[in-house]
Amino acid sequence: MIRVGIIGYGNLGKGFEKVALLNEDIEIVGIFSRRRDKKLSQLGNPIYHIDEILNFQDKIDVCILCGGSASDLPWQTPEYTKFFNTIDSYDNHGEINNHFDRVDKVARENKRVSIISVGWDPGLFSINRLLAEAILSKGYTHTFWGKGVSQGHSDAIRRIEGVKCGVQYTVPNEEVIERISKGESLDLGPADKHTRLCYVVIEDGYDKETIERSILTMPDYFAPYHTLVNFISQDDFERDHRAMFHGGRVIRCASTGEGNNQVYEFSLKLDSNPEFTACVNLAYVRACYRLAKEEKYGAYTVLDIPPKYLSSKSDYSLRKEIL
Amino acid sequence: MIRVGIIGYGNLGKGFEKVALLNEDIEIVGIFSRRRDKKLSQLGNPIYHIDEILNFQDKIDVCILCGGSASDLPWQTPEYTKFFNTIDSYDNHGEINNHFDRVDKVARENKRVSIISVGWDPGLFSINRLLAEAILSKGYTHTFWGKGVSQGHSDAIRRIEGVKCGVQYTVPNEEVIERISKGESLDLGPADKHTRLCYVVIEDGYDKETIERSILTMPDYFAPYHTLVNFISQDDFERDHRAMFHGGRVIRCASTGEGNNQVYEFSLKLDSNPEFTACVNLAYVRACYRLAKEEKYGAYTVLDIPPKYLSSKSDYSLRKEIL
Repeated sequence: MIRVGIIGYGNLGKGFEKVALLNEDIEIVGIFSRRRDKKLSQLGNPIYHIDEILNFQDKIDVCILCGGSASDLPWQTPEYTKFFNTIDSYDNHGEINNHFDRVDKVARENKRVSIISVGWDPGLFSINRLLAEAILSKGYTHTFWGKGVSQGHSDAIRRIEGVKCGVQYTVPNEEVIERISKGESLDLGPADKHTRLCYVVIEDGYDKETIERSILTMPDYFAPYHTLVNFISQDDFERDHRAMFHGGRVIRCASTGEGNNQVYEFSLKLDSNPEFTACVNLAYVRACYRLAKEEKYGAYTVLDIPPKYLSSKSDYSLRKEIL
Repeated sequence: MIRVGIIGYGNLGKGFEKVALLNEDIEIVGIFSRRRDKKLSQLGNPIYHIDEILNFQDKIDVCILCGGSASDLPWQTPEYTKFFNTIDSYDNHGEINNHFDRVDKVARENKRVSIISVGWDPGLFSINRLLAEAILSKGYTHTFWGKGVSQGHSDAIRRIEGVKCGVQYTVPNEEVIERISKGESLDLGPADKHTRLCYVVIEDGYDKETIERSILTMPDYFAPYHTLVNFISQDDFERDHRAMFHGGRVIRCASTGEGNNQVYEFSLKLDSNPEFTACVNLAYVRACYRLAKEEKYGAYTVLDIPPKYLSSKSDYSLRKEIL
């Protein structure tokens, strides 16, 4: 059994708690939260205050950090890697190398293993972008997200003054996907490939036009995209927009030899994004535990980990049953 | 530059020669063949007799073994791994562990690295079966092949007395794929998922019915499947059945949490099976070379190799550009 601590009890932490039940080799020791209002989780696991976590150093093999990339993980992962082997799902692409360096230093100094940026993107999509490019060296890789809820973009909407609730669906351009899947070589940016569809509930006394303009002109998040904003009631929001489905695809097309088209595609269709992300984290818990046993201390990403480290099966069984 | 020797000059060897041109870090030193009739390949690479290969020990970093799994690779891979780092595409699933053990022993004794069973199945499909199962622990994995030419089944047809030419297309059951892709849980064997479609040219004086019965009743290859046999003329065969396209999919469906369906899918659509297989081999040449530099001697499969070892990019660049 691998003994796991969950740090943070939002969507990802709750997802991890559920999917751990599906895996006989994973045991949840406890959930560690900043809040002090509950002693037991939805599934009956103990909830401790985060300040108590150092009492668990010899009871936990791996900690899953379930906080956000904007304000939690940049300090949490280096801090908790002093005391535990850790996994995070840090997804701020532009800052990943800085985050990696900070975590790597702490991990080496304290003889810990940390695997950062674990999930499906970054994560499984990254592995596929790498494999596809290494195998088909001359070609185009396209990543499509959706249709699904983007947590980061939904958060960005909710931070606008006067917004009560908001959700953003990333919608891929199916016509473009079809052309690429047939082997057409298109050189497109993310904005050509996606529409951003927003549903917003506003507070009384705020102006729809002002809020719509704030969304449409927001740099990076919405300005470069074709964005549609719909204002709806709180009731409609509760009824239609609470699901956390997502998905996406990585497609690489290349030509080899005399114009032979080769199409490589990886796709996910997820009813629950947090539960699937938790499943990916859980598989990498096994890798983290094993690397620590082997005393291979330091920081890692999914690109560094041999596939077999994600499985509890022996090398022999994997070759026999899966290869 | 990684200096590569090609052993065997059939479809795979010819494919490798072509796709090496697309990769700046790969240099072909020579092609080594049992035949003595040519000195230069289709692309102007030198062809040597296989008996000369030991003269190239300090000129080749990695040898790609392009022979067949039935009679070449079982002795070639252990033999040439005495003198070279090697890659093979051994695909006899039932014998993989024995082959691995033989090659591993030779590789360790002689301080070589060998990566066996490299291609797309076994190979990329194996990686995806492993990842999907490790991540979605309760579910079904389905592998579909085709529509495409199965070299093994085509060979089996051609071995029947009276058959002049023959090709077998593996055709997946699209209705089943659609149901699975939507998240339906089906527990199916390969025979429920594929039809085997054969085109055969017979020698004068042989009986169609006898040959058809030999195909339909062939154990393992055809008997368990819905198989269709068509007899055609040599001209039709040359015109319509010389392409070597293939492809397939690995799909895993699982439910997490409260009945949330999660669908994981990997697929390939290949105009040229040998050229794509050669591309996969080429990416693993990089891994083989690197493992040898690191003195990590022994046999490996694709399940053992960290994804980053397939790329010529630095860890830093991969984290920045791909993660």
